[in-house]
Amino acid sequence: MSRLLLTLMAGWLSVSTVLAQSGSSAMQTGSTATQSGSLKGFGSDASAQQSLEARFDGYLDASRLGERLKIMSARPHHVGSPGGKAVAEYIYDQYKRFGFEVRIDTFYVLFPTPKVRELEMTGPTQYKALLKEPALKEDATSGQSDEQLPTYNAWSADGDVSGELVFVNYGLPSDYEQLARRGIDVKGKIVIAKYGRSWRGIKPKVAQEHGAIGCIIYSDPKDDGYYEGDVYPKGAFKNEYGVQRGSVMDMPIYPGDPLTPGIGATKDAPRIDRKDAINLLKIPVLPISYHDAEPLLKSLEGPVAPEDWRGALPFTYHIGPGKTKVHLKLEFNWDIKPIYDVIATVPGKDFPDQWVIRGNHHDAWVNGAGDPLSGQAAMLEEAHAVGELLKTGWKPRRTLVYCSWDGEEPALLGSTEWVEQNAATLQQHAVAYINSDGNGRGFLNAEGSHAFEPFLEQVARDVTDPETGISVLERRWAREIINATGDKAKELLNKKSFSIGALGSGSDYSPFIQHIGVPSIDLGYGGEDPGGEYHSIYDSYDDYVRFKDPGFVYGVVLAKTAGRTMLRLADADLLPFDYPSLAKNIKTYSTEVNALLDQERESTALQNKLIKGGYYHLAADPKTPIAAPDPKDEVPYLNFAPLQNAVVGLEKSSTHLNDLLSKRLPSGDTLQQLNTGLYQAEQQLLSTQGLPRRGWYKHSIYAPGFYTGYGVKTLPGIREAIEQRYWKEAQDQIDLDASILNHFSQYLDKLGSTAYPQQ
Amino acid sequence: MSRLLLTLMAGWLSVSTVLAQSGSSAMQTGSTATQSGSLKGFGSDASAQQSLEARFDGYLDASRLGERLKIMSARPHHVGSPGGKAVAEYIYDQYKRFGFEVRIDTFYVLFPTPKVRELEMTGPTQYKALLKEPALKEDATSGQSDEQLPTYNAWSADGDVSGELVFVNYGLPSDYEQLARRGIDVKGKIVIAKYGRSWRGIKPKVAQEHGAIGCIIYSDPKDDGYYEGDVYPKGAFKNEYGVQRGSVMDMPIYPGDPLTPGIGATKDAPRIDRKDAINLLKIPVLPISYHDAEPLLKSLEGPVAPEDWRGALPFTYHIGPGKTKVHLKLEFNWDIKPIYDVIATVPGKDFPDQWVIRGNHHDAWVNGAGDPLSGQAAMLEEAHAVGELLKTGWKPRRTLVYCSWDGEEPALLGSTEWVEQNAATLQQHAVAYINSDGNGRGFLNAEGSHAFEPFLEQVARDVTDPETGISVLERRWAREIINATGDKAKELLNKKSFSIGALGSGSDYSPFIQHIGVPSIDLGYGGEDPGGEYHSIYDSYDDYVRFKDPGFVYGVVLAKTAGRTMLRLADADLLPFDYPSLAKNIKTYSTEVNALLDQERESTALQNKLIKGGYYHLAADPKTPIAAPDPKDEVPYLNFAPLQNAVVGLEKSSTHLNDLLSKRLPSGDTLQQLNTGLYQAEQQLLSTQGLPRRGWYKHSIYAPGFYTGYGVKTLPGIREAIEQRYWKEAQDQIDLDASILNHFSQYLDKLGSTAYPQQ
Repeated sequence: MSRLLLTLMAGWLSVSTVLAQSGSSAMQTGSTATQSGSLKGFGSDASAQQSLEARFDGYLDASRLGERLKIMSARPHHVGSPGGKAVAEYIYDQYKRFGFEVRIDTFYVLFPTPKVRELEMTGPTQYKALLKEPALKEDATSGQSDEQLPTYNAWSADGDVSGELVFVNYGLPSDYEQLARRGIDVKGKIVIAKYGRSWRGIKPKVAQEHGAIGCIIYSDPKDDGYYEGDVYPKGAFKNEYGVQRGSVMDMPIYPGDPLTPGIGATKDAPRIDRKDAINLLKIPVLPISYHDAEPLLKSLEGPVAPEDWRGALPFTYHIGPGKTKVHLKLEFNWDIKPIYDVIATVPGKDFPDQWVIRGNHHDAWVNGAGDPLSGQAAMLEEAHAVGELLKTGWKPRRTLVYCSWDGEEPALLGSTEWVEQNAATLQQHAVAYINSDGNGRGFLNAEGSHAFEPFLEQVARDVTDPETGISVLERRWAREIINATGDKAKELLNKKSFSIGALGSGSDYSPFIQHIGVPSIDLGYGGEDPGGEYHSIYDSYDDYVRFKDPGFVYGVVLAKTAGRTMLRLADADLLPFDYPSLAKNIKTYSTEVNALLDQERESTALQNKLIKGGYYHLAADPKTPIAAPDPKDEVPYLNFAPLQNAVVGLEKSSTHLNDLLSKRLPSGDTLQQLNTGLYQAEQQLLSTQGLPRRGWYKHSIYAPGFYTGYGVKTLPGIREAIEQRYWKEAQDQIDLDASILNHFSQYLDKLGSTAYPQQ
Repeated sequence: MSRLLLTLMAGWLSVSTVLAQSGSSAMQTGSTATQSGSLKGFGSDASAQQSLEARFDGYLDASRLGERLKIMSARPHHVGSPGGKAVAEYIYDQYKRFGFEVRIDTFYVLFPTPKVRELEMTGPTQYKALLKEPALKEDATSGQSDEQLPTYNAWSADGDVSGELVFVNYGLPSDYEQLARRGIDVKGKIVIAKYGRSWRGIKPKVAQEHGAIGCIIYSDPKDDGYYEGDVYPKGAFKNEYGVQRGSVMDMPIYPGDPLTPGIGATKDAPRIDRKDAINLLKIPVLPISYHDAEPLLKSLEGPVAPEDWRGALPFTYHIGPGKTKVHLKLEFNWDIKPIYDVIATVPGKDFPDQWVIRGNHHDAWVNGAGDPLSGQAAMLEEAHAVGELLKTGWKPRRTLVYCSWDGEEPALLGSTEWVEQNAATLQQHAVAYINSDGNGRGFLNAEGSHAFEPFLEQVARDVTDPETGISVLERRWAREIINATGDKAKELLNKKSFSIGALGSGSDYSPFIQHIGVPSIDLGYGGEDPGGEYHSIYDSYDDYVRFKDPGFVYGVVLAKTAGRTMLRLADADLLPFDYPSLAKNIKTYSTEVNALLDQERESTALQNKLIKGGYYHLAADPKTPIAAPDPKDEVPYLNFAPLQNAVVGLEKSSTHLNDLLSKRLPSGDTLQQLNTGLYQAEQQLLSTQGLPRRGWYKHSIYAPGFYTGYGVKTLPGIREAIEQRYWKEAQDQIDLDASILNHFSQYLDKLGSTAYPQQ
């Protein structure tokens, strides 16, 4: 799995992130937060740290990074494969060489692999799907078919189904509303959905909720193929045979080994029955190429698909159903496989019990040069440079923990089981978790706990973009301005604040932040590295060096960015958490959910009025009728006051704490108690019971969306209750979040009064 | 030519037209203007007129309408063809039977037809374009190749050119800005542009302005083909061989015979040299099918086309130039041909010198069942019903003039020459000109002089939509509401005003309103009749009855709508002009051009700032660089006060006149002087010199756009000066329009004081 596709899908510029700048030219910086020289948490003189970072940079080497990427991507290395074990051992060996303490934490997880894969159209004409990506002479590893996982979706159910085919666009709830208005029901039928607009696992989940007996997912060339640009191997985009593998476990309920929810999947852990795992599908699902999708879609009859459903294949898209019938047969080996998390540690010299954790997965769907090895290789190069610093006698003040995770692709297995196994210890010791995944040429993408905003702004200020020579902060900001229009561009040009996106899911930070409340950051570069290799056999070294990051330049930039993040967190006197930034963001989210309810109320009232007045009927073409939507229940007013008051309280408490911290630092144990209190604060945002219907997700501010999958929902309890029209639950969640925020404010107050007893 | 495609292109719902309604259900009407029973211009009792209209409706017969459509579309009937002459004679005969006085006014016009048409790709591979639409067994007239005009663009220059090919998107000025930012110059090259987004003639004009030596225009299946729906003959949309013929004369300079600008092209009229006609192109232009375009476009290299340039052909769209070379050879017969305007008259019994004029063209590019015969057949059925009324002894109070125009397709030839020939007489006698053209199933589309707004609202109120049983006014309004979103839908639901779109060009109203200031209206139905037959051999009877208006139901609806318009204008005591409606719309346009200048100033300032700050460079991908746009001159402030004051004056004068008219009517000659003054008022909006660089267009409020072709520009002198950044000219035009409006207000004041001397 990876952020990368998600980022492409969402359009990274829509992330609500604004980079700071002042003055009339992009070459100047001037905002207080980005004052060159100052480093948050290092007092008045940060020169020693800056000189350390300069030395750190000096140890980074792009060609060595590329060499490691080439070695690790030399053969397929998915969960449970010989290649996977070899990569774990290689990484183990590297950390050893860097002088780290290394161990491999092994877990035993369910991991299905295909035994039978058959898809055929049985009417009105015959077509047997290829289900195969061909080897290419331009791609040296593409022919390793003996070791490649075939094209499939992990966690599909076993199944042997036949039925009429229905095209369901992206397979989202709103698409089924459109089907219903056209009198089309998918019950007992097989659906075909396009990849995109949601995490893939949402598509079969929603299909199953609507009674479909099977689900096919294909890559339309409009979203992922020739419409975007020249196809592989001429260009980077998906050719007609490319297939996106990937997990379809219902991870928005819980990730990790489905048989051991909430606990580490050790050899002897108690396991539930597979049939009791509520995050596993009941219907078979198969991903296919657009070569295989074309005859099926072309054969469909029934209504012409609405304009925004149509892709780039050269025919008229119809919805079906009709004479087009397909037969889908899938069987899997449901084996328990070992996974290998490589954990490498550098003990802190001053505060060994405070851990700064870094992670990137090492398992891939096939060769995975981009996903995940581009991030893994950058992380190893970062660790290498730390090792070089160690050789000079430097030691971090806090403990560094580097984690190379296994099993991320199927279900964040390695990170989730490790976090579940070590939850209490981590909640005690973990200062932060810094994640990366696939990486490429382009712009900084930073998401994370909002208390890190000013800290990350400084990091981005201090890393230079190799293509333009300005900071990565300024470059990203330039692009946002150019892509904005009118007033928005003017606003960006004048604005001096920096904000980072909230974390949804899609990589290994999820268990850290959302399950146990460890402050987390996800870092990566991209936006000048688009392509169609994602989760296919063409995510290869040959592809990577041509299209993703020639010369591994942005691998080094990622190492500099994550390296600074690690070193500053490790060595800061005062940990650089800024809770007014969190308060500011929560205030925005609170305003949003309030507005969401109002919009929902207004649009419901209007729509009901239009239904009742007969306008849908009067406006429709009687030859291709589209029925009115069903009327919806009117939206009540809810009491947001508890939440609004709690946000005001949080603004006060967090500002008061910052005022105290800005005066002088306490010393000795008091300072370290203060630091511990600062990094444990995020845990106060967890609720005991977790989110409704998915208690594994305990964070009250951030969660992946129940119907978006990767995409974040902020204040998820409230927001999703409104979206799903559970009005009573929405009020309960408002009250719950208010009490959590009030508790959080009290926590900050206590932290301040303990550290500064005289104030 | 026809409104139809334009309507599809523009999306008729974007026309700023709002239909009136009150109450909570679409079934009720209640606005004052639409009070059932009242008829504008008929005093307190309109029952006689309503009973006349009921009888009129009773004479309309759909199958007879369809029979005439079948007869007239039985063979190709373009300008100068035997079929064209036969159709004119058939129409002549019909009017005779209805009891009208009929004559044929013949003009002699230049009309080029193809002699040589060759297009081939000469490198890197060979392809010879078919340039041919095949006959289909499902389409009885499609095989009449002996009489069909081949696929071509009339008024292309003769030419024999070879060069590199460049894809220029829709071929608009903004597309060339994108090319320039990518370092691509079309000088000495041949461009290929997609049909759509502008009238076709704009594409070669802009190509020529940029130094291209030839222009190919093709129909992309995304805009006009399988992307929209099933293709002909399975469905209505353009198949791979379909080609849109059409004129590429620069009609935004002047329409009509290019050799007789401003005067009627009678046999002996003085003619200019063809090389001196400034509305004729210097480069060859050819329209092709997407079958013929595919190999050319697929062969292109160079940068990948920007996303909004890409069509629905199954490959990556590149811009070129490169190895792809084409050879284009075109030669034409430049012959003078006779055109036959059939003019049928019913003298008015009370005011024979006040003429209410109706028109629709009869010439087609090929068989033209939809364009123009669906409108022509509806007009003949309307005339038939008038004839039946005449038989009962009824006579119109004013003179009715029915005009079946020839030569509309190449250049509005028949109407323009007739108007130029009879300009002075028409300015004296013409009460109004009511136009139609192609017609089909769906919603009322009404555009025209804004003083007709309340009048047309009543007409639309009184015609029933056959598909829903409500008025065509209410049905259109229902659709606007359903297609609007959020606040706009609420606003529409509550709004009770009706407005009609302003007239651009694309059909025969253009010379009436824009050259000589005769108040004009264009009427038609559509929106449930999309298809790809426009200007192809497939615009046939077989196509029409399947896809456009099965049963000719909307043909009858058009006859009812235009018939009511004619009968009410013919018989009204007081002509139903409402000048406060005109004032209201001019106020909107005045606000718009003011806002346009402000937006232009702001966006210029911002863009110049971004260019100077280097942001374009910083945001660009160095591997696929896109240069910053060129800086533009800063936008000055202009003095809008004269215009704003003139608009206030017009509001006062027009309201004062309406107040007078609402009290009591003058009698006898004074009333008829008043009526004459009312219908001649629009002439007061003409300027002597016409628009800059195109003096044929004399109306100060309405003109087709210099760079849009059909699309209207309101306050065109001011608006286009701003768009083209002629600041000095913009100020001159503001002052000119202000003085025209002041003069217009004085005219209305005088009209009132003459008719009501005591007030």
